Amino acid sequence: MPSATEYIERNRERFLGELVTLLRFPSVSTDPSHVEDVRNCAEWLRDGLAMLTPTRLELIPTAGHPIIYAAWETAQNAPTVLIYGHYDVQPADPLELWETPPFEPSIRNGCIYARGATDNKGQFFAHLKALEALLNSDNRLPLNVKLLLEGEEEIGSMNLRPFLEEHREMLKCDTVLISDTALYQDDLPTLCYGLRGLCYLEVTVRSTATDLHSGVFGGVVDNPILALAHILSGLRDGYGRVTIPGFYDDVVEPTSEERQRLAALPSDVDTTRRELGAPLLFGEVGYSLLERRWLRPTLDVNGIVGGFIGSGAKTVLPAVASAKLSMRLVPNQRVEDIAAKAEAAIRALAPPTVNVEVHHLHGANPVVIPIESLPIQVAARALERTFGRPPVFVREGGTIPVVEWCAELLRVPIVLMGLGLESEGAHAPNEHFHLKNFFRGIQASVEFLREYAYAASSS
Amino acid sequence: MPSATEYIERNRERFLGELVTLLRFPSVSTDPSHVEDVRNCAEWLRDGLAMLTPTRLELIPTAGHPIIYAAWETAQNAPTVLIYGHYDVQPADPLELWETPPFEPSIRNGCIYARGATDNKGQFFAHLKALEALLNSDNRLPLNVKLLLEGEEEIGSMNLRPFLEEHREMLKCDTVLISDTALYQDDLPTLCYGLRGLCYLEVTVRSTATDLHSGVFGGVVDNPILALAHILSGLRDGYGRVTIPGFYDDVVEPTSEERQRLAALPSDVDTTRRELGAPLLFGEVGYSLLERRWLRPTLDVNGIVGGFIGSGAKTVLPAVASAKLSMRLVPNQRVEDIAAKAEAAIRALAPPTVNVEVHHLHGANPVVIPIESLPIQVAARALERTFGRPPVFVREGGTIPVVEWCAELLRVPIVLMGLGLESEGAHAPNEHFHLKNFFRGIQASVEFLREYAYAASSS
Repeated sequence: MPSATEYIERNRERFLGELVTLLRFPSVSTDPSHVEDVRNCAEWLRDGLAMLTPTRLELIPTAGHPIIYAAWETAQNAPTVLIYGHYDVQPADPLELWETPPFEPSIRNGCIYARGATDNKGQFFAHLKALEALLNSDNRLPLNVKLLLEGEEEIGSMNLRPFLEEHREMLKCDTVLISDTALYQDDLPTLCYGLRGLCYLEVTVRSTATDLHSGVFGGVVDNPILALAHILSGLRDGYGRVTIPGFYDDVVEPTSEERQRLAALPSDVDTTRRELGAPLLFGEVGYSLLERRWLRPTLDVNGIVGGFIGSGAKTVLPAVASAKLSMRLVPNQRVEDIAAKAEAAIRALAPPTVNVEVHHLHGANPVVIPIESLPIQVAARALERTFGRPPVFVREGGTIPVVEWCAELLRVPIVLMGLGLESEGAHAPNEHFHLKNFFRGIQASVEFLREYAYAASSS
Repeated sequence: MPSATEYIERNRERFLGELVTLLRFPSVSTDPSHVEDVRNCAEWLRDGLAMLTPTRLELIPTAGHPIIYAAWETAQNAPTVLIYGHYDVQPADPLELWETPPFEPSIRNGCIYARGATDNKGQFFAHLKALEALLNSDNRLPLNVKLLLEGEEEIGSMNLRPFLEEHREMLKCDTVLISDTALYQDDLPTLCYGLRGLCYLEVTVRSTATDLHSGVFGGVVDNPILALAHILSGLRDGYGRVTIPGFYDDVVEPTSEERQRLAALPSDVDTTRRELGAPLLFGEVGYSLLERRWLRPTLDVNGIVGGFIGSGAKTVLPAVASAKLSMRLVPNQRVEDIAAKAEAAIRALAPPTVNVEVHHLHGANPVVIPIESLPIQVAARALERTFGRPPVFVREGGTIPVVEWCAELLRVPIVLMGLGLESEGAHAPNEHFHLKNFFRGIQASVEFLREYAYAASSS
C-alpha cells in the first residue's frame, strides 16, 4: 500500500475534481428557493462518505437543512476526534461583481473560484480526503473519528444546537477539529484560539399605511428612512464605539500578555488600508488593528432597504424601511443580554412618529480556548511538519456558533486549524481558495490524527 | 347636432372604454425596459387626435420619450389656450400591494384603478374629450387650442424645457390649462395657484473596494450604511426643519392673508393622521398642516439601499450604500442654489473613512400664479357651473416643472384645474380616479373654453 503522502500525491487530480463537483451545488441555506440544492449537496457528500466504510453514516433531517453524521469507531483504547464542517454557503449576490459564475468553479492562478470555496467546502473537504488517505494507506484510522457536517452555519446553525444537546453521548469525544478560520498570512500556519460572538437583529420602521407622494405629504408625516437613519446613527459613534447603554459592561479588557502576542504578529495599517481599498481605516481609539478585529466588540449594518431603489427618480414618500444589523461580541458579553440592550436602545431612539419592530435573527456567544491544551499543542506540531515552520496563535473576528456550543456541551478543547486566507473573499464576490492550502490541509489533517492518537494514548 | 352636454352624455361608455385602453399602456418613463410601451402610448394618442381634425398634429421625437403636439388654429381674433398633460406614469412597484394589476384597469366603487389613472392620464384625457364634444356639437372650437402631451413628467421633463425654449412662437398662447393637481375635497371644486419646486439628488457612499466579512473586518473599516445614515440624519432635524446651512435664506414667509385663506379651508389633524395611518403627524413647529404641505420647504429620502436585502441574515460588511433624496422648494428658493448647498452639507457630513458621490437627478423651481388674472377667474366660474359651488383656491405641495417653465417662457397665467383627489394614490399602489370627476372634467373644460373665448375677446 502507498503511504498516506503518496496516496494524496497520486490522487490530486481526482480530489480536485471532487471539490469542483462539491462547489457546483448552490447550497445557499438562507434562500428558500435553494432547499433542494442544499439537500442534493448533502446527499452527494453522504454517498461519498459511504465509500470510506464508516461504522455509522446518516443523513439526519432537521426542521431546516439536514445534518450529515459519520463515525469510524474501530480503534480500541484510542481517543476520539470530532471533525466539524458546514456544506452550506452564503448567498452569492451581488452576482454582477463575480468574474466567473459563483456556482461554476473556475481554477486560475492556483486558486479555485466559487461561492463556498474557502467558506467552508474547500476546508472541510480536506479532512474527508485525509480520512480517505489514511484508510487507503494504513488500512485503518489510528483513532476514532466522528464527522459532523451541517447545512445551516451561514444562517445561525439554529437546528444544530438542539441536535448537539440531544446527541451528547453519540458525539462524545476528546477534541473537536474544525477548519473554518484563516491562515494569518499566506504560508504562515495558524491556530485560532478565540472567536467573537454575534448578535444579529432586523429593524423595521413604518410611518404610514401606504407609500405617499413626497410632494403632497412631505412635511406632515415622518420619513421612515430618515427615522431609521437616526436610529442607526445613534447606535455607534464616528470612531466605532457602540453607544448602546451598557454594551461594554461585561467586556474583558485584553491582558498585556495577549496584547504583546498580537503586537508580535506582522500587521501594517497602510497595507491593510490599500488592500481593502478604504480611503482611511476606522475604529476605536486606543486599540491596534488586530485588537479591534479580534478583541473588541463592534456594530455594523449588514443591509438596508426602503422606498424606490430602481434606476432614475421616484418622488415617493415611503411607508417602510428596514435594516439588518449585527454586533460582534467578545468575552464576557452574552447574546441575550446584548440583544435586549440593543432593542431597548433602538426603541429609545425611535421618534414617536413611527412604529418600530425588532426581530432577533440569530446569535452566538464569544469563545476563547486555552492554548496549552494537548490537542492544540499536537495541532501546532502537525502544522509545523506540514508547513515547515511553527504556527502563530491568533484570535479571529468572525463567529462559528458550533465552537461555542461544543465548548459548552462537549467540554473539550477545540482545534481551529484554519486553511483559508482572509483575502479569499468569504461572504463576498469572487470567493476563492488556494489549492496549495487544500492539499496542505489534507496532509496536516493526516499528521494531526496520527500524532493525536499517539499523544493522547500516552498522556 | 346635439349640445356638447348631450354629446358627452351619449358617449360616456365609449369615453370610458378609451380611458381603459389608455391606462393599459405601461408608459413608465423612468424604466428603460418600457421605452416601447411609452412610444406605443404616444402613437395611440396621436391616432386618436387625428380623428379630431387638428390643423397640425405631430409626434415629435426628443432625446427621450416623444412629445405629442396638436393645434386647432381656426378661430380668427380669438384667444389661444394651450392644454398640457403627460402620458407617462410612475413605476408601479411595490407590485404586491396592488389589489388588481396596475396596467389592467379595474372599475369598482365608481373609480377606475390603474397606474396613471389620476396622475395624469385620466385628468388630461378629459380635455381631449371636451374638444371632441365641442367639435361634435358646435362643429368648431370657440377659440384656438394647442395641445402638448409629454412623456417625461415623472422623470423631470428634461427634454421639455429645451423644446419649450425652441418653440416659443409655435406655443404662443394667452393661457395654459393643466389638470394635474387635486380637488381639495371630494365634490369641492379647486383651483391651484402655487406649486412647490423640487431638487432631487442621489448620494452614493463607498467604504471599501468590495464587500467584506463583517466578523473579519468589522472594527477596522467604516460601514457605508452607517456613514450614509449619519449624513442623512444630519440634513434634517426631528421636527422636519432642514439643517442644510443656508437652506432657508430665500424662503418667503407666508403673508397673513395667505395664512387666513388656508386656515379657512377644512382641515383636521386627527382625520389626516388616521387616513394616512401614521402613529403621529410630523413637521415644523409653528406652521399648520396645510402650511407645512404647501408653503414650507421639506427634505425627504425617497429610497435607500445597501448590503444584503434578501430574506434571512448575511454577515456582510457592505462596500457601498446609496440613497435618493429630494427637497421640495418654495418661493424664492432656486434649484441650483439649493442643490449646491445640499451637496456641500452632504460632503461636510461625510466622514473621511468613505468616498461620497452626489448626482443631481432633476429639479424645478417653485411657482405662484396671481389669482386675480382673467383665465383663473374664468376657470372659477366654469367650475362653479359644473360643480354647483364656487371653487376654493389652494396651493399644492407637489411639483410640475412645466408650470414653472410656462410661467417663465410663455409669460401667461396658468390655470391649474385639478380633477384628482389626494386620496387616489398618485405615485403609490392602487392608484385610482373617480369617474364622476372624469366626466365633470370634460364638462368643466367645455365651459372654460367657451367662456374664455367670450371673456378674452370682450376684455
